[in-house]
Parts: sequence; structure tokens; C-alpha cells
Amino acid sequence: MSDFDNLLDKKAQEAEEIIKSFLPAVEGYQKKVIEAMNYSVMAGGKRIRPVLMMEMFRIFGGTSEDTVKPFMAAIEMIHTYSLVHDDLPAMDNDEYRRGRKTTHVVYGPGMATLAGDGLLNYAFETAIRSFLSKESLTEFDGVIKDRKAMALKILAEKAGIYGMVGGQCADIEAEGKQSSTEDELIFIHENKTAAMLESSMMIGALLAGADSADIQNIEQAARKIGVAFQIQDDVLDVIGDEAQLGKPIGSDEKNEKTTYVTLHGIEDSKNEVQKLSNEAISILAEFDGAQDFLIPLVKWMISRNK
Amino acid sequence: MSDFDNLLDKKAQEAEEIIKSFLPAVEGYQKKVIEAMNYSVMAGGKRIRPVLMMEMFRIFGGTSEDTVKPFMAAIEMIHTYSLVHDDLPAMDNDEYRRGRKTTHVVYGPGMATLAGDGLLNYAFETAIRSFLSKESLTEFDGVIKDRKAMALKILAEKAGIYGMVGGQCADIEAEGKQSSTEDELIFIHENKTAAMLESSMMIGALLAGADSADIQNIEQAARKIGVAFQIQDDVLDVIGDEAQLGKPIGSDEKNEKTTYVTLHGIEDSKNEVQKLSNEAISILAEFDGAQDFLIPLVKWMISRNK
Repeated sequence: MSDFDNLLDKKAQEAEEIIKSFLPAVEGYQKKVIEAMNYSVMAGGKRIRPVLMMEMFRIFGGTSEDTVKPFMAAIEMIHTYSLVHDDLPAMDNDEYRRGRKTTHVVYGPGMATLAGDGLLNYAFETAIRSFLSKESLTEFDGVIKDRKAMALKILAEKAGIYGMVGGQCADIEAEGKQSSTEDELIFIHENKTAAMLESSMMIGALLAGADSADIQNIEQAARKIGVAFQIQDDVLDVIGDEAQLGKPIGSDEKNEKTTYVTLHGIEDSKNEVQKLSNEAISILAEFDGAQDFLIPLVKWMISRNK
Repeated sequence: MSDFDNLLDKKAQEAEEIIKSFLPAVEGYQKKVIEAMNYSVMAGGKRIRPVLMMEMFRIFGGTSEDTVKPFMAAIEMIHTYSLVHDDLPAMDNDEYRRGRKTTHVVYGPGMATLAGDGLLNYAFETAIRSFLSKESLTEFDGVIKDRKAMALKILAEKAGIYGMVGGQCADIEAEGKQSSTEDELIFIHENKTAAMLESSMMIGALLAGADSADIQNIEQAARKIGVAFQIQDDVLDVIGDEAQLGKPIGSDEKNEKTTYVTLHGIEDSKNEVQKLSNEAISILAEFDGAQDFLIPLVKWMISRNK
């Protein structure tokens, strides 16, 4: 493994421990839904969103990690609920994810629906609890309170109809419709994929004390990363190696789906990925410490061949 | 119509106008999911939860209704999402609700799942936006900010695994299981039904300035109302009039469901409803103005025969 791979593994493990520490205890008459929630969250993965959040927090000089940890858990819970609902028979009907049975296969579609609902709700509970104690109406912890409230707002807005849910809707609407426009396609990529990267990176920086201008730049960079990531996905669906990808190629053509590649061809698509990637990196390179891990991570995310 | 019926209709209409004013505009590439969300919310009903919230706000002397309105909309969005997901083929598979086609019948189960997710998320967006402006990190409106944050916490906790979602899970687990204990049954009633009445009433009082002791008493009263309401439901399932109820009776027996009635018989169940109802009313009667509408509303909710 390269140094970067080692570092990514280490950071993903750290994030996983943090996420785990915020999961609810499996007990009570509602223990089945909690079990299904925890099964879904502990399905592995690189924990890209919380890792990005923590890295932005570090770059902007955040010291008290207890501030950012509940939000790392919350963003992963939201990401996970979206996968659980996406996998449902009523949606993509996927039986496996990362080689593991999906939640609805193990717990049934009703309980999986409820587990997704429970995760989305628990994400907000976790983030809200981080700035309010159970006993007091007024126990905020000083100046940071406003930043936590703002982080909560970003968390909510990027996950909803003007973010991820909006992108999922447009994606469903676009299936089997060969006439999607580029505008529509970019909307899907920006919302379905980029929005949650935006909130991850923005919240990390915000909680560490970044100013508004920096946060806006981070939002732009994250959007470019998300869109580049998705165009790369479209490219790999045409020219990828099935063995490396672990899934069949050509699915977009089979599903009669408009993609960046069907609109612009392979070469232009590759160039667009490179262009967006360079633009994102040049924004992030302004921040001290970005070269240590953040920029290698962005390169790894976009230039993957699987 | 009686004076009470007129008053309830008027207050339900007021609540409906307020809810409507917070619904997202049907536009953009995500307009289908927004349309499905709005279709679901505008399905009618007595808007009991927001009406209760506003009434508690009024009783505790709340003046600026703009404080409570976003939370009235939020609680109805959460209630609605729970119905949309409950009606899904993966859950109860209901095709009609209040004589109107359910969301999944009109929009398909995938879009209905997404509409429920969108509503839950938008409930939090609406409540969070009420104390944060888009532009500023710090624009709270004075002392009320802590109460809004606390209201947000109650909203989230009563809707999740330690509230409504937890009750739904236990309810699913109890289906077809004739051996449910009284403890389990009360857990289901307290969480599936009472929790959202608790948050409605607690938030209304909290935002108007009620103190902790009052809020705890209100929580107790709301819990009793919720449990009494559900036991009454069990009673009506045995002795109700199908024409008045608008649904077949005997469904609990058919579903081999343990209910308060199967455990204690009709007479004891009726007595328990009366006892809980009296206890709740005697708590609420301590508050000035409760006789105007709140207590008649509670009596109406519990003593209904349909």
C-alpha cells in the first residue's frame, strides 16, 4: 500500500470509531429498528464524508474535536439512510452492497424503510444534542453555538429537496428518458452527489472557525469534486474494467440513460473531469495544510478507475 | 354544528393556512417530489397536532405567532411523512386515506418513499430556518433563541427511535404476535401515538415561555391523552359502528393483535380511557384559559365514536 492508502485507511478507521460511538444502544421494544440502523451504518466503506469533514476542521485549525464529531456521525447517518432507501425494492431493488446483504434483504422492506427514517431523524438528534444538554434550556457553549446552529442548517438543507433528495428525484425522473439536457444532468450530479460533499467540507471548516468567504469557496470546490466524480462514473461505465469495478459496465446504455458521455463523448468527458478536478484543487491549495492529505484524497476520489 | 365543532373547524383551517405557507414551491428538476410532498400534506384532516401547539402557545401567553408557526408546519410535515411511509406497500399497503388515493398510489412507491424522506428533512429545515437567517451566522432573535433550539430538540427526539419511529417498530414487531405484554402495548401507544402529541403541546408552551415544571406536566398530560386515544381506538375496533367509523371493525382480532381490550376486556378498557382522560384534564385545568378550547378538544379526541 502507498503512504496515501495507509493514511486513508487510518483516517477511515478513526472516523468509523467516532461514528460508532454515536450509534444508539440496541435495546428496548424498538431494538429491531436500532439493530437495522446499526447494521446499515456498519456496512463499511471509506467514510469519505466524515473524513473530509474532519480534514477541513483540522486545516482550519479546529482544536476541540468534540465539536465536529457529532456532525461526522450525523453526515454518515444521512448518507447511510439514503443508501438504505435507494436499495429498497420500491427504488433500485439492490440485494447486495459492498458484498453484504442490503438492509431490506436482512430485515424486510418495512423495517428497512423505518430504519432509514430512524437514521435520518437520529442524524438531526445527534447534531442538535451536541449543542443542547438534556437538562437545560440555555446551556450553549459560548460563541461556538451559532456555528453549530449554522452547521445544522447546512446539514439539513444539503440533504433535502434543495440537495440530495432533490437530486434523487431528478435522477428517478431521468431514467429511461433519453432526452435529458446537460442542465438537468448537472443538476442531478450537483444535488445527488455533490451536495453531501459540500456539507461535509463546509461544516468541518465552519466549526473550526472559517469565515464566510472561505466557506463559499469550499462549497464551490466540493461541488466541482462531486460533479467530476460523477462524470468519471459515467466514463467508467463505458470504458471501465468490469473486474476492477466489481459491477457490469454498459448499464447506462442498457437503461437508456443520458450521461455526460452520451452528450459529449469520452474524450470531452475525460477533459471535463480533469478541468473540474484542477479547478477544485486550485481552490483548496490556498489553504495551509491542504497538500498533506486533502488534495491527495480529492485526486484519489476523482481519478479512481473503480 | 355545535359551537365546539365550529371552533375546531375554524382553528383547523387556520392551521392549514399556516402549514400551506411553509410548503416548498413546486418547481425545478425536483418538482415531482415536491408535488408528492404537497399532495401528502394537503390531504385534509383536523390538523390536531398544530392546533394543539397553537392552543398551548396561546394559553401560555405567547404573542408573536411567527415564533410558533414554523414549528406547527414542521410537526404536521413529520406526522404526514409517517403516514406516507406507513401506507407504502412495504408497510400497511393502504390505497386510500380519508377517501383519497395514498401518495404511493398516485406517485409510485419509489417517489412516495422519497416524498416521505423529503418531508421529514424539510420539517427540520423549516424549524431550523426559523432561528437562522440565510445570510448570517449569528442572527438569533434574542432570548427566544434558546427556546427555539430546545423546541427543535423536542421535535427531533419525539419523532425518532425514542418516540414515534420506536413505537412504529414495536408495533410492527407485535403484529401477529398474540403474546404481547401490557408493558409492550403501553410502549407502543406512548411512542407511536402519544409522543407527537407530547411534542406538539410541549413546543407550543415552551415557545410561549412556560417553565420546566409546566412543560413536564404538559408532557404527562399529553402522554395520557395519547394512550387514552389509542385504547379508545381498540375499544371502537370491537364495539364501534362500521358506518360511523368508515372502516371495518374487528381488524385487531383478524390480525391476531394483542390490544388493551384483549388483555382487560371492554369494561375495564372503557374505565381506563375515562381515568386517563380525567387525569389529563385535571393537569390541564390548572392552566388559565384551558376551558375555552383545549379541554373540550381533549374530550372530543378521546370520547369520539368514530
